[in-house]
Amino acid sequence: MEKGNRVLAFECGNYIGQTIILKGWVHRVRHLKSVSFIILKDRTGYIQCVLENQFAGMKIENESAIVIKGIAAATGQQQNGVEIIVEDISILSKSETLPFEVNKKELDANLDLILNHRLISMRNERTQAIFKIQSAITGAFQEFMRRNGFMQMFTPKLVAQGAEGGANVFKLDYFGKEAFLAQSPQLYKQMMVAAGYERVYEIAPVFRAEQHNSSRHLNEYTSLDAEMGFIEGFEEIMEMENEALVHIFQYLKETCGNELAALECEVPDLGEFPRITLEQAHEILQESFGKSSPEGDLDGEGELLICKYVQETYESPFVFITHYPVETRPMYTMPDLEQPGKTKSFDLLFRGTEITSGGQRIHEYELLEKSLEEKGLNPLEFESYLNTFKYGAPPHGGFAIGLERLTAKLLGLNNVREASAFPRDCDRLVP
Amino acid sequence: MEKGNRVLAFECGNYIGQTIILKGWVHRVRHLKSVSFIILKDRTGYIQCVLENQFAGMKIENESAIVIKGIAAATGQQQNGVEIIVEDISILSKSETLPFEVNKKELDANLDLILNHRLISMRNERTQAIFKIQSAITGAFQEFMRRNGFMQMFTPKLVAQGAEGGANVFKLDYFGKEAFLAQSPQLYKQMMVAAGYERVYEIAPVFRAEQHNSSRHLNEYTSLDAEMGFIEGFEEIMEMENEALVHIFQYLKETCGNELAALECEVPDLGEFPRITLEQAHEILQESFGKSSPEGDLDGEGELLICKYVQETYESPFVFITHYPVETRPMYTMPDLEQPGKTKSFDLLFRGTEITSGGQRIHEYELLEKSLEEKGLNPLEFESYLNTFKYGAPPHGGFAIGLERLTAKLLGLNNVREASAFPRDCDRLVP
Repeated sequence: MEKGNRVLAFECGNYIGQTIILKGWVHRVRHLKSVSFIILKDRTGYIQCVLENQFAGMKIENESAIVIKGIAAATGQQQNGVEIIVEDISILSKSETLPFEVNKKELDANLDLILNHRLISMRNERTQAIFKIQSAITGAFQEFMRRNGFMQMFTPKLVAQGAEGGANVFKLDYFGKEAFLAQSPQLYKQMMVAAGYERVYEIAPVFRAEQHNSSRHLNEYTSLDAEMGFIEGFEEIMEMENEALVHIFQYLKETCGNELAALECEVPDLGEFPRITLEQAHEILQESFGKSSPEGDLDGEGELLICKYVQETYESPFVFITHYPVETRPMYTMPDLEQPGKTKSFDLLFRGTEITSGGQRIHEYELLEKSLEEKGLNPLEFESYLNTFKYGAPPHGGFAIGLERLTAKLLGLNNVREASAFPRDCDRLVP
Repeated sequence: MEKGNRVLAFECGNYIGQTIILKGWVHRVRHLKSVSFIILKDRTGYIQCVLENQFAGMKIENESAIVIKGIAAATGQQQNGVEIIVEDISILSKSETLPFEVNKKELDANLDLILNHRLISMRNERTQAIFKIQSAITGAFQEFMRRNGFMQMFTPKLVAQGAEGGANVFKLDYFGKEAFLAQSPQLYKQMMVAAGYERVYEIAPVFRAEQHNSSRHLNEYTSLDAEMGFIEGFEEIMEMENEALVHIFQYLKETCGNELAALECEVPDLGEFPRITLEQAHEILQESFGKSSPEGDLDGEGELLICKYVQETYESPFVFITHYPVETRPMYTMPDLEQPGKTKSFDLLFRGTEITSGGQRIHEYELLEKSLEEKGLNPLEFESYLNTFKYGAPPHGGFAIGLERLTAKLLGLNNVREASAFPRDCDRLVP
């Protein structure tokens, strides 16, 4: 029970025979001859309210915010075994007629309309489930990180330099100086590890001024970033991310039953994710699918096919692709001295899409300076970052998960925009 | 024990008599005639390592990252009852001589130097304690929010309109359109409440393009935002924030003993925070301190004096100041119909500084439209926000806590910059 003696939908069963107060929205109204039914929804679920006598036939718009006083009565008719016999009802805030119906399973509107009327489409049960699950994903991630000794950090989004050298960044005027919006907390998380925190994580927006308007890109998204020091090898990072995802998926199964059911989503059981080198992946694509790949990378089709192959061969929806060449990875990536030209890096693919980049970073000053130069970057512009590695920076690495992509892939959404409350793309800045 | 059989400083006591592996940084070295001592630090604490025989007198720079293999031995000399007799030591990453010493209690450098060399100053025990406590504050906030049915949300920082109408916002070009950096998630959190989530919170950066370079302002800071629907009155919001802070402070006492001790900080016991109307506050300032106040607000000195008064009178370091006039509050603030000209709003002061603004919001379309116009704003520019209130928006309100200010005030830091890992002010965009 909340302040003001309000009872929530999910706990009505505890009050059988008692008069209680409910607050929520009108999900649906049904009128019979001498009785009406309102399905009331609040943040915890749905409850049937029975309107008899003077209340029967009451006119009330769907989605209006209401307060109901009534007796909780046991019933065999409802799944949760309880309904409310209404004794009093008042409208807190009347709804106008909606631009499209939200109490159906699927919204009968195209994605543009859904996003333009986000505050309407959000009222749909399946849409709400997406964001409740997303909130649970971050909650589980944080719990896992804390348990493993990672400290939550908050690093600036207004920066003087891009993490990878300046492409695809939003620029702005900062009190007369040129500033950028951070593409990632990459440099800061490395700096925090080196400064003695060892293990840090951040959950924060990142900004990419990329022009492509695809179903898998957003110009602003939420990044789950982690970085850890004193590693023995970059396998430890993959292990940590693997364990994090196992924990998250387990947590969703335990806490999001209703939401997963609404989305008809079955959370897969996860074991150890297979690891395949990029070279092997290229071979598999060539041999099994007759497909050639771009130099040093996978393209979208390649990611799809490799995931198909891995699902069939190893029954895993996740796969690590490792050892990308130096040319296709950022300046901070640790080269693999045993495999010249290759790096200690990985991507994590999930159901056909890359959801993570990660790897070991360079922790030696001279090597990092050289790497910057080889990437055509000016070490002077990275001075404060570079200086970090003069003062006892341990071997370290990390990963970053795109929250919206993970959510979309897990829930089987066709477009990453559906996993963002207020998505930002080249054409969309409102609402 | 971690991967690679690494033992952490805080758990060495569990391995007495065993050979263990430690990784960390050299906090301090001390050479005696035939024996040397290294205090090794890792993310969990400090441990003394004894270098005898061939290791005695070893030259090693403070802050170098090292690996030590040695036997954990019981000792009465150390607080934690254990020290490590070194059998092997290797340097992972050598440190150069530091620009200033970090292993003293206080850093012997001014704030500018400390912030310019953030990755050095961060290695100081007290500085580290600040950010570990800050991480604990957000962890406790999240736990409290989750327990109380709040969903974590992620709203865009790239927006088409400022929350309060356009002053003090950073502007940028967004694919040919004008965009702003969000000053707060205010409009979005209201929209999410109305869309059926009822209770939402967000922990995210906010951006203020304010020119003043004071000890209490940052141009980018972390905001702990919460918003709740179906409230009976704005007192409920104050109650929720009060309870959140009680929980946070209790959590810090339970989990951050070492960090609080390093900072010599005693976390105060909290009860119910006193509530004083702004009018009463003005009277108190006049009567007790002979001080007049600016119309409809408190100035910095007034905040200090009111907090002094409240601490002495009610023994509370927190005080809610309520009922600010319509003129000094934003357009979404609910007016108090029983006290014309006043609003259902509050600030929360902590030890002389405002750390929160909050209050009930307008949930009626016509009233909100009128309020926008009275503030000289164009309702058309707020269309998607305004439309929210056509479709059954319940009474609601919320609050926002400035994380760095809360941290600074709790820990007795003189400048809010000390509570930001990488502070942003008019002159500071690096590191």
